[in-house]
Amino acid sequence: MEIAELGEFGLIRRLAGDITPVNESTVKGTGDDCAVISTDGAQETLVTTDMLMEGVHFDLTYMPLRHLGYKAVMVNLSDIYAMNGTPKQITVSLAISKRFLVEDIEELYSGMRLACEQHHVDIVGGDTTSSMTGLAISITAIGTAAKGEAVYRSGAHETDLICVSGNLGAAYMGLQILEREKAVYNEQVRETTAQARRNGADVEEAIARIPQPDFAGKEYLLERQMKPEAKKDIIERLREAGVRPTAMIDISDGLSSELMHICEQSHCGCRIYEERIPLDYQTAVAAEEFNMNVSTCALNGGEDYELLFTVPLTANDTVSAIEDVKVIGYITAESLGKALISRDGNEFELKAQGWNPLKQP
Amino acid sequence: MEIAELGEFGLIRRLAGDITPVNESTVKGTGDDCAVISTDGAQETLVTTDMLMEGVHFDLTYMPLRHLGYKAVMVNLSDIYAMNGTPKQITVSLAISKRFLVEDIEELYSGMRLACEQHHVDIVGGDTTSSMTGLAISITAIGTAAKGEAVYRSGAHETDLICVSGNLGAAYMGLQILEREKAVYNEQVRETTAQARRNGADVEEAIARIPQPDFAGKEYLLERQMKPEAKKDIIERLREAGVRPTAMIDISDGLSSELMHICEQSHCGCRIYEERIPLDYQTAVAAEEFNMNVSTCALNGGEDYELLFTVPLTANDTVSAIEDVKVIGYITAESLGKALISRDGNEFELKAQGWNPLKQP
Repeated sequence: MEIAELGEFGLIRRLAGDITPVNESTVKGTGDDCAVISTDGAQETLVTTDMLMEGVHFDLTYMPLRHLGYKAVMVNLSDIYAMNGTPKQITVSLAISKRFLVEDIEELYSGMRLACEQHHVDIVGGDTTSSMTGLAISITAIGTAAKGEAVYRSGAHETDLICVSGNLGAAYMGLQILEREKAVYNEQVRETTAQARRNGADVEEAIARIPQPDFAGKEYLLERQMKPEAKKDIIERLREAGVRPTAMIDISDGLSSELMHICEQSHCGCRIYEERIPLDYQTAVAAEEFNMNVSTCALNGGEDYELLFTVPLTANDTVSAIEDVKVIGYITAESLGKALISRDGNEFELKAQGWNPLKQP
Repeated sequence: MEIAELGEFGLIRRLAGDITPVNESTVKGTGDDCAVISTDGAQETLVTTDMLMEGVHFDLTYMPLRHLGYKAVMVNLSDIYAMNGTPKQITVSLAISKRFLVEDIEELYSGMRLACEQHHVDIVGGDTTSSMTGLAISITAIGTAAKGEAVYRSGAHETDLICVSGNLGAAYMGLQILEREKAVYNEQVRETTAQARRNGADVEEAIARIPQPDFAGKEYLLERQMKPEAKKDIIERLREAGVRPTAMIDISDGLSSELMHICEQSHCGCRIYEERIPLDYQTAVAAEEFNMNVSTCALNGGEDYELLFTVPLTANDTVSAIEDVKVIGYITAESLGKALISRDGNEFELKAQGWNPLKQP
C-alpha cells in the first residue's frame, strides 16, 4: 500500500495504534502536541519532535538559512506551549550534504540560537552527520508543566467556547507569494540566459541584473511564513487572566484539521462562524489577488502556529477581553457533527484539507 | 570552509562551543552521551538523539528494514546506559521517500518495537513525513538516573583502571564482509545480465538464479553489525557488584576515539595494552582473510556498542570477576599522553581514526 494513501495520521495509527505503554512514567504517548512523562517530583516533562526535510518542508531558494533555523526551533517550542508548558531545552540533529559550507551551518545555527534566546531555552545536544542530498533537520524540544497543568487535545466539553489567537491564513498566503515569485524568477533566468547566449553576453552578469521581486505591502505575510513566533505571550495572558483551557493545539496544518483533532479526541462536535475567523488585511488582499477564498485559506492554510483552544462558557468575558484572542465558536455534542456556519448562515461540514506531509511533492 | 575538514566534533565545538546554559535544570548540555536535565524530584532526565541517513549510515541492499529499526533504537538506548541510566521512552521520526510502501515501514517499526520491548521502553511520539530521496530516521531516547548517579566522560582519575565489555572489532569486520559480498553480487548481476542478453534469455530469471553468498562461520560478525545490543546487562552487573564507574562512554566510533574523549574530558592520559583488547575468534579470522591488522580493527572499527569505562584501582578484583568485562589499561597524568602498548612492549600514540560522519561517502 502506498503511504500517501494512508496519510500521516493513518500511518501513525497503523504503526503505533495498539501500543500500550509499559512504563508508569509514560503519562501520554502519541496523539497530542507533546508526549507527557511524569517525574518523581511535582513537574511533568513534555517532549515533542519535528523533522524538516529540504524540498518537502522548506525551499532554500527563498528561505534564508537563518530564518530556517529560527522557524525550525519555533515550531517545536509552539508544541510545548500548546500543552500549556514551558520549553526548557532542545536537541538539534542535522544531516548536511556537501554543498553546504561551515558558514552556512553557522547561519542556520544563529537563527536557532536567536529563537532559543527569546524563549530562554538551552541547546543541550544533538547529532551532526552527512546526507546524500539536501539538508535534514530534526529537533526535539523538552519542557515542563506542573502536574495536572498540561492541557490535552482531549479535554473539550459541550458548550465550551472555541478560541484562536492572532489571525489565520497569513503564513499560507506568504508561501503562495514566495512560490509565485520563484516561478517568475526561474522564467526570467531562462529568458535572460537564452538572450545573453544569442547576444554573446556574459550569462552570469545578465542574471545578476534581474531585478529583485517587489514585496511592498506583503511584508507581514512573508514574515508570518518565514519567521513564525511561538505564542508564549498568549499562554502567559491566559495564566494572568486565570483561564486554563480545557483543550489546546497549535495550528500547524490548518484550523479545520486542528479543530477536528480536538473534536475527535474530546468526542465532541463543534460550530465555528466564518465571520469570526480572524484575518489580517494583507491576507484578504493577497487572497483576492490570487483569486482564492480567504476563509478557505484561513481554514486550511497551515503554518500560522497560532493557538486553538477551548475554555468553559463561563470564561467568555475573560477570554474576550484578552488581547489577540478571539472566540470563533463553541463545542457541541458529538452527534451534531463538526460544522462551519458561513456568513450567510448555512452550515458546511468541516473537512481536514490540511497539508499531507506524506504526499510526494 | 568545507564541513568534512572540521569533522563532527570540530563543527559542534564551533557551533555550540560558547553556549552557556540559561536554565538551572540544564545539568549537562552537549559533549557527553546524553544531556542531563534535573527535575524537581530525586531523578534526573537523560536525553540523547541520533540521526540515521540512508546511503550514509545504512545500506538497504543488505540491511533488512526490521534489523535497521532494531539497530536504530539500540544505538540510542546504548547512550542512556553509557550514562549509567535507565531508558524509558523514545520518539521516532521518519522521513520516507515514495519507493517505500506501508508494509516496509511496518517492518522497520516491528524491529523498533522489538528493541523497545526488550528494554522496557515506550514509543511516545515522533514525526512522519516524506523525503525527496531515501529514508531518514531520527530517534530521541529519554531515560532517568537518580541524582548524582549519572556517569560522565569527565570523571576519570589517574590510576583508575580502563575496562571494556564484550569484544571489539566484530561489527566492523561484519561490515567489511557485507560490503565485499555486495560488490561480488553487483559484479555477478552485471555479468549475468550481459550473458542472458547475448543468449536471448530472461534477465530477471537469470539474476534470480545467482546463488546467495555463503556466510557460514561469519554469523557472529554479521549479527554484531546488523543486530547490536545495548549493554543493559553490564550496567546491572556493575550495580550488583557495587562498582560505580568514574567515567563511561559507549563504543560507537571505535575504542581509540572513545578513550580519547574520556581522557580529554577528564584531563588525563592513558595506557592500554594491545594484548588485553578483547577479540572474538571470528574477528581474528576475518581480519586475516582481509589482510587487516586485527588490533587496528578493534581500535578503530566502530559500531560495537560495547561500554568503555574507568573504575578506581581498588575495584580491580571486583571488575575482573565480572563476566564480559576486561581491564585493558589504566589512566595516567595528562602529561604522559595517550598510548597503546603493543605486544612487543613499544608505545604508540593513540589516534582517533574513528568514523567521520561528515565525510561524504
